[in-house]
Amino acid sequence: MSRQAITLTTDFGMGSPYVAEMKGVILSVCPEIVIVDISHQIAPQDVRQAALILDQAAWRFPDGTIHVCVVDPGVGTERRIVFVQLDRQSFIAPDNGVLSRVMKRGELRRAWEVTRQDLWQHPVSNTFHGRDIMAPVAARVATGQPLERLGPATDRLTMLDWPEPEVRGAEIRGQVLTVDSFGNLITNIGRDLLDRLGSSAAISVRCAGHTIRGVVRTYGHRAPGTLVALIGSSGLLEIAVVQDNAARRLQVTSGAVVTVS
Amino acid sequence: MSRQAITLTTDFGMGSPYVAEMKGVILSVCPEIVIVDISHQIAPQDVRQAALILDQAAWRFPDGTIHVCVVDPGVGTERRIVFVQLDRQSFIAPDNGVLSRVMKRGELRRAWEVTRQDLWQHPVSNTFHGRDIMAPVAARVATGQPLERLGPATDRLTMLDWPEPEVRGAEIRGQVLTVDSFGNLITNIGRDLLDRLGSSAAISVRCAGHTIRGVVRTYGHRAPGTLVALIGSSGLLEIAVVQDNAARRLQVTSGAVVTVS
Amino acid sequence: MSRQAITLTTDFGMGSPYVAEMKGVILSVCPEIVIVDISHQIAPQDVRQAALILDQAAWRFPDGTIHVCVVDPGVGTERRIVFVQLDRQSFIAPDNGVLSRVMKRGELRRAWEVTRQDLWQHPVSNTFHGRDIMAPVAARVATGQPLERLGPATDRLTMLDWPEPEVRGAEIRGQVLTVDSFGNLITNIGRDLLDRLGSSAAISVRCAGHTIRGVVRTYGHRAPGTLVALIGSSGLLEIAVVQDNAARRLQVTSGAVVTVS
Repeated sequence: MSRQAITLTTDFGMGSPYVAEMKGVILSVCPEIVIVDISHQIAPQDVRQAALILDQAAWRFPDGTIHVCVVDPGVGTERRIVFVQLDRQSFIAPDNGVLSRVMKRGELRRAWEVTRQDLWQHPVSNTFHGRDIMAPVAARVATGQPLERLGPATDRLTMLDWPEPEVRGAEIRGQVLTVDSFGNLITNIGRDLLDRLGSSAAISVRCAGHTIRGVVRTYGHRAPGTLVALIGSSGLLEIAVVQDNAARRLQVTSGAVVTVS
Repeated sequence: MSRQAITLTTDFGMGSPYVAEMKGVILSVCPEIVIVDISHQIAPQDVRQAALILDQAAWRFPDGTIHVCVVDPGVGTERRIVFVQLDRQSFIAPDNGVLSRVMKRGELRRAWEVTRQDLWQHPVSNTFHGRDIMAPVAARVATGQPLERLGPATDRLTMLDWPEPEVRGAEIRGQVLTVDSFGNLITNIGRDLLDRLGSSAAISVRCAGHTIRGVVRTYGHRAPGTLVALIGSSGLLEIAVVQDNAARRLQVTSGAVVTVS
Repeated sequence: MSRQAITLTTDFGMGSPYVAEMKGVILSVCPEIVIVDISHQIAPQDVRQAALILDQAAWRFPDGTIHVCVVDPGVGTERRIVFVQLDRQSFIAPDNGVLSRVMKRGELRRAWEVTRQDLWQHPVSNTFHGRDIMAPVAARVATGQPLERLGPATDRLTMLDWPEPEVRGAEIRGQVLTVDSFGNLITNIGRDLLDRLGSSAAISVRCAGHTIRGVVRTYGHRAPGTLVALIGSSGLLEIAVVQDNAARRLQVTSGAVVTVS
């Protein structure tokens, strides 16, 4: 039988012991598990950024992987913790919308409120449910704990609004969804939508007062320093500066308007 | 038999090859081991910070885990390397006080000076004993090397002074022990001590000219931006700004005085 | 049989999902593999820095480890991807010179162009061959895929020029190769070359207008704040400030001239 994997996505940063505390708890329950970090550099309390990064990485993992996502500004309050089983992957997270991107893409099988305290790590702190609830529950599920035992089933899950691009005739009006570690601006405009506008050479992309003519296949097809538009590795329109940082050059961040015509 | 784990705590940062060099050495001796990073973001040569982070994370790991801690300003000098077996966990580190927090909490079973050179990786550099001595010795112990073979037993271990809170009547005078990655100020005042002062609503906490009335259960019980005091996930009194950075707001770092009354 | 390892070296940073996407792909092909991060903090597109770090870390890993190196400014262009088998380790990377340091040290057995698309992950993006080509090919080789199936053999590999120290009589003129995470300046002058100049006490090292007399055994043999020269853990001459940052103190970076006499 192949080993199972648990991934971790948090806003804990790299300098704190919190990530390692979660890993210790997981390994104590389930020493055979593979633990993979998705990111611990989510901006503090930035549920939207975590939702996007989780959705980008999760689907690459083996079927049956359990993704633990701890961006949890409401920790210790009445907010629920949920375990959500989509068609190929499972997720445990606070019910604050952090799963609302993966739920747009994956098909929901079932979901549970995580309430059964005998599966938790005691004493439970009021400020670190990632360590005391989510990590041990994920590890117990990985060792075969039936999902029905986690708590009551639920079909009410918090969904955030995600801006959709608007199409008006021959123009698409979208926005920058996120900025990656290279400073590339990743928009919410997908390849399919772009294809409707016809040939990529005839397209022009506008953002922050700049106009880019044509969509290139990849960065290396233009000289270093050139502002380009292309379809990035997630199938989304991306604005980049070849071998440089577009976010810095254009002074742009998430939410900036991007128009394609 | 379940797999064993080795953890690493260093001041090497994320950009250097040093951490990977240690992992390569460990896997060369013991390919089945699980290696977990506690932190590599310890401030250079900051033995106290490493001691605190190690103590916060280590106890969450499975019994028998071996923790390697390489914050080692005296590398290559006469300072000793020690292998310390506490009741549930083992540690290998330079004898510079970096183990003096875990030794306050855990019960010492036995300790050895690490002197037997046939267990080391040769040639041994003068500047990287983490790679050439501590990593291979930890890996060999994980594969079953008897501890008696590491070198002579010792019961003389370097202990640092750790400031204890002072109680004067109805007042506790403590200090900020460390600042976490969220900017929360973690003090040396434990839950037990605080309980002696009576109801948490009646308590007031003073630090850097600010007074906080009452101890809340968790961050989310106050509005974003509010300065709060609470018991953090290690059982210590913590000063935080809800969804913001208390260290930055109060311009405070480790060592700052905190008074509770 | 012992588990095999794959290492990753990239310029993706810690905040992006790209590293985790590669790990998900690898685990999907080969769930038993050990994945180790060498560094993801390579400066964007800095092929030389990646080449140095890879060479410093790779040789510490078990024989048969596969090292994946994705610093790939030419992704999606005509640049080739190569799989290079040296005497003890294997490497998969764009053929842009990033392997030209390990190839100086290791003995080349065979190399292949990676062209056989049935071993790739489809659809293949134009901008992320690390995830879609290099990760799945490395994982398939780890599961026993014969190397002959990767594509045609090649013996033409891109080599970068690496500056060699010049010896003129009793003087060696070298340069700073890289700056480590402590700010230590690591030069291209090796121990062997230095030994030719005779006793280390009589040596003087000059860099950026500073002269250091003698080579110490290790940092701790001088007082904190002292500028010292020593043989570092890779066997290269290194300039350091004891418990401080030499790069910052001397305002020096890679390429700075270092003279030993």
